[in-house]
Amino acid sequence: MPLADIILTHGTVVTMGQSYTIIPDGAVVIQSDTIIAIGTSEQIAREYQATETVDCRGQAIIPGLINAHTHVPMTLLRGLADDRRLDVWLIGYMMPTEREFVNPDFVRLGTLLGCAEMIKSGITTFNDMYYFEDSVAAATVEAGLRAICGQTVLKYPTPDAASYEESLQSCRDFIIKWKGHSLIIPAVAPHAPYTCTPEILQACASLATEFDVPLHIHISETSLEVLESRKQYGMPVVPWVKKQGLLDARVIAAHCVHVDDGEMHTLKHHNIGVAHNPTSNLKLASGIAPVRRMLELGLKVGIGTDGSASNNDLDLFEETRLAALIAKVATDDPTTLPAKIALAMATNIGAQALHIEHLTGSIEPGKRADLAIVDLEKLHNWPHFNRDPEAIYSRLVYAAKSSDVQHVLCNGQWLMRDRQLLTIDTETLTHQASEIAHKIDVFLSTRENNILSKLLAIGELQQEESFEIQVKVRVETTEQAQQILDHPGVSITKTSHYRQHDTYFGFTSPTASYIRYREDDYLDERGHVYNLRARLTFTEDGQKQEIDKAILLSRSRYISPATRPLRFYREYFQAQMEHTIVKERWRWHTDYKGLQIYINIDQMIEPPQDCYYLEIKSRTWSLSDAKEKANAILELLAYLGIQESALVTEEYLTLSQTEH
Amino acid sequence: MPLADIILTHGTVVTMGQSYTIIPDGAVVIQSDTIIAIGTSEQIAREYQATETVDCRGQAIIPGLINAHTHVPMTLLRGLADDRRLDVWLIGYMMPTEREFVNPDFVRLGTLLGCAEMIKSGITTFNDMYYFEDSVAAATVEAGLRAICGQTVLKYPTPDAASYEESLQSCRDFIIKWKGHSLIIPAVAPHAPYTCTPEILQACASLATEFDVPLHIHISETSLEVLESRKQYGMPVVPWVKKQGLLDARVIAAHCVHVDDGEMHTLKHHNIGVAHNPTSNLKLASGIAPVRRMLELGLKVGIGTDGSASNNDLDLFEETRLAALIAKVATDDPTTLPAKIALAMATNIGAQALHIEHLTGSIEPGKRADLAIVDLEKLHNWPHFNRDPEAIYSRLVYAAKSSDVQHVLCNGQWLMRDRQLLTIDTETLTHQASEIAHKIDVFLSTRENNILSKLLAIGELQQEESFEIQVKVRVETTEQAQQILDHPGVSITKTSHYRQHDTYFGFTSPTASYIRYREDDYLDERGHVYNLRARLTFTEDGQKQEIDKAILLSRSRYISPATRPLRFYREYFQAQMEHTIVKERWRWHTDYKGLQIYINIDQMIEPPQDCYYLEIKSRTWSLSDAKEKANAILELLAYLGIQESALVTEEYLTLSQTEH
Repeated sequence: MPLADIILTHGTVVTMGQSYTIIPDGAVVIQSDTIIAIGTSEQIAREYQATETVDCRGQAIIPGLINAHTHVPMTLLRGLADDRRLDVWLIGYMMPTEREFVNPDFVRLGTLLGCAEMIKSGITTFNDMYYFEDSVAAATVEAGLRAICGQTVLKYPTPDAASYEESLQSCRDFIIKWKGHSLIIPAVAPHAPYTCTPEILQACASLATEFDVPLHIHISETSLEVLESRKQYGMPVVPWVKKQGLLDARVIAAHCVHVDDGEMHTLKHHNIGVAHNPTSNLKLASGIAPVRRMLELGLKVGIGTDGSASNNDLDLFEETRLAALIAKVATDDPTTLPAKIALAMATNIGAQALHIEHLTGSIEPGKRADLAIVDLEKLHNWPHFNRDPEAIYSRLVYAAKSSDVQHVLCNGQWLMRDRQLLTIDTETLTHQASEIAHKIDVFLSTRENNILSKLLAIGELQQEESFEIQVKVRVETTEQAQQILDHPGVSITKTSHYRQHDTYFGFTSPTASYIRYREDDYLDERGHVYNLRARLTFTEDGQKQEIDKAILLSRSRYISPATRPLRFYREYFQAQMEHTIVKERWRWHTDYKGLQIYINIDQMIEPPQDCYYLEIKSRTWSLSDAKEKANAILELLAYLGIQESALVTEEYLTLSQTEH
Repeated sequence: MPLADIILTHGTVVTMGQSYTIIPDGAVVIQSDTIIAIGTSEQIAREYQATETVDCRGQAIIPGLINAHTHVPMTLLRGLADDRRLDVWLIGYMMPTEREFVNPDFVRLGTLLGCAEMIKSGITTFNDMYYFEDSVAAATVEAGLRAICGQTVLKYPTPDAASYEESLQSCRDFIIKWKGHSLIIPAVAPHAPYTCTPEILQACASLATEFDVPLHIHISETSLEVLESRKQYGMPVVPWVKKQGLLDARVIAAHCVHVDDGEMHTLKHHNIGVAHNPTSNLKLASGIAPVRRMLELGLKVGIGTDGSASNNDLDLFEETRLAALIAKVATDDPTTLPAKIALAMATNIGAQALHIEHLTGSIEPGKRADLAIVDLEKLHNWPHFNRDPEAIYSRLVYAAKSSDVQHVLCNGQWLMRDRQLLTIDTETLTHQASEIAHKIDVFLSTRENNILSKLLAIGELQQEESFEIQVKVRVETTEQAQQILDHPGVSITKTSHYRQHDTYFGFTSPTASYIRYREDDYLDERGHVYNLRARLTFTEDGQKQEIDKAILLSRSRYISPATRPLRFYREYFQAQMEHTIVKERWRWHTDYKGLQIYINIDQMIEPPQDCYYLEIKSRTWSLSDAKEKANAILELLAYLGIQESALVTEEYLTLSQTEH
């Protein structure tokens, strides 16, 4: 009689194999890293002996669950920012924090904590995408889990690479180092089509093909992504990445929330694995992926938790249940995605989606011994109806909790017994995690209290000239502007006409300041908009000085192009005050005595006023230059015969607020 | 210094009170059944002493959660039938099982098991609707929980009442018995508008008003319900129940998935509490309730688990998380229903929805001591970001699990300490539950193997005549039918013309049998459908006999009106074979020698045939009468000059199958 290493016996073996066999009083025999036999407990007892025999009475023996998409080190960012839109969450919070904190130590710590949580919820395989993936891989091996580790490549500088060439090179090194490891499958992970250039996508596909490793990417997560792709490339996301040769690689496509029938056919044709992330897609309001249709077409769809920063946990029991639930409401049919199929997505279909069905995903002789033993006799999973043996799927999917997982084995190694982790000492880790969380809190608190640093965190900012010199006067007609332009010393260099939509976000603490979001609609001769420009200006208050009667504004003034919608800035900055002004502006750039002087005629539209404002202004970095320009402006005022008492000293923001 | 009973100290007190105060190192003082003080641990230590002081370090002290809608005894039916449509689930499985098994013992057992599960997930109050509600109330008091117990009233006979008058009387008795109890609030529970008559709704509203108790009802759970209401009453559900005076009572309306803006205004105007049931609504594909809009209008919306038979658990942590998640995707906005509001729905808003905010739902002096203490330092809820104190809401809603609840107090009494239940001995209960589940399995297995009993389980069936005598012959034209009608001894009593859609569901075990779903479309002179009739016929095979050449069918033949859609029967019966035939039939009811004889001309449309069938048939309960009728039919055949060899002996089902 052969002596095996481990026999699990007297459990209900839910094989999730090709014929979906369920063995009510069943046993599984493990030798080294491999399942060598399954059968009834009686049969196995007759044929095998083992060093260790584990009684699994009242428990289900299931394949270790497969987390098809995550960013495991982000476990350290759990709960950092919730209930926010994807862009505010990602660009406003995640990326700035990651730029500041992510390093190999951070990644190792986050991975170990994430692995500990995954083991406790019965996961034995996960598909990852992050930075410093070498540290993810090393920590995963330490934890004893199986993983596909995708080294991220994107067009922006990342915590682990200053350029995409650099990250591509480190990805290559990473693959060479890890290829052939018993637990780790290295992968190339171009972040997403919209964060990569065509060149990057092509290079990543080549690299993946060269080494025959998987390629892990986010595809069509939001409707905005699809809209932008259509706008920019005239096609949705899948055909566009196909055009870049991406689908020639062994791809795992995360999300696929917004893919049409044609795209699904394309994905199927190229044998692309899909990772469905229910919680993340709901929480960020991305939508509900068309999972039923994908499965109908034969696509392999696994289930992922996504990172803990958008979930906020790594609980595949919850995720599987949720996959089943939302598919029903999305198709208006409660028979959609029954428990059996949902569990298959978390096991054997998930393995196929990750292209590792030869290793894991089912309990069949020859597969690696990746197993979870689940107590099904907990109070919340009682009683049991047994007339249909398949009712166990419903028990596992609709009522079981991750906390019911008793033991976990991966690659033949025990990772958890009786809910005690065997490979990870969590006490030190949780302590270290607290310290990092505290530092991040300090970093973000400081930033929250400093609008300028908050602005800096999301984009390229440039400091504008320090001085703005201007006078403003209320006029009945545009006649006086014409008078200046007719002045023999004044020559017009450029004219323009636009409608300006200004939204002011006001802050009172720590110092009074505001951010102006200005959208300039350029108007042609018929008053039609022919171009748009949106800019942000940050101004701190309380730094005005007067030179004679012309106002000199001396201030730290920063400007940047506004690349995101107004809504983003509203949610991101959380201003104490918001105010909108719309005006029409005719502007003449002029040269007067060699000085650049702007003449504006402004007409307030919102709130409406029955007059015009004539502005004469200039800008400079130099105080002495500012004084010279102030004198020139005063000369022009005198030329128009305007009294100093007629000058309006308030800014438009103040004017519009006081008039209402 | 006053001596209180209990001080909970050093926890984070999440009050969920009017100002949503959070006390990071906080304490709660309990005297008898009441919270008498809250404050910082330091402050409370200075001012109070207690018999018992509990250190809640690392834990959140939150109001006991409120399960706003459930059917707690259905805990015993968990997992009985999943992934099925509401009607199949309810009418096909739940109701027949309930008719057979529900009695006071069943209800007591299910309630105790359900209460045990609820305590373990931090619930201290639930709103119930079931039969034998007196037993629910008694068991709930035994468990120590707070509940609104609604005695069900509906138009059908129920396990606890043969008529609605009886259940109304027992509801009145129930109210009189329990009104004023410290834990139980009795309520009237008309099941739903579509299962009650206007008379029942009016009587229930009067009863609730008379005793000033809540009225608990299902409202607009499915779009079908609304559609039917519009069809039947010309208005959606809310205005219709308003018309019955229902909204004058203190109503708790479960579901409200399909209510329009006007209906929401009406509900608000009448201060109706809404119970939102995310899992149940997803799992049965009922839809997603417009919760954001309801909250915008100021409606009080609580969160319910619904019964375990449609959930399949009583986990309000999951339910609350799900409420937050689905509201986001339903409104396409991740800022919808943030964690704080979701938790409020499970606590203080929930209490308002149940009209018991004076008792529970928040941690404020004067309220009952209904509390849950939740460990927030579990691995899956780590690390913590503390720069925003409100992050604790996100921790509780997005990452905490019911298994993190450590202690539970209700009405000042400990129900659980360190996850050990103190009022319920679950071991005996789970054993009893197994026994019942086994009996139900046997009952349903027997039924599944007996199509007739499955048919009996869902509706009123009547046995038809035992004998059907008929001959059928293939004819080229309708001429021969006319010939019979012109026969001097034949007088026409009635004529009709219809298109018949026949779907046959065939079963091979235990005996060959089939159910025919027949839809008769009555056609007018222009061939337009002016009426419909759908009927089910159950026939067991193998009981045919021939009398001469006329076929005599002797069989157990049962017929019933088909009140549900074809789809229902398809899903419910799970036939081994399904086959559809469409034919057009002209039928003459005739009198021939005082016997009722039918003459049919049938034209096959699907599958099409290029001929007609002439049928001459009659029916009877008596064998001697059958023989007499068979002779009459043979006479008519002879009159037409039709040879016996021309007779078709196959039924249409067989004919259509062999021709294809």
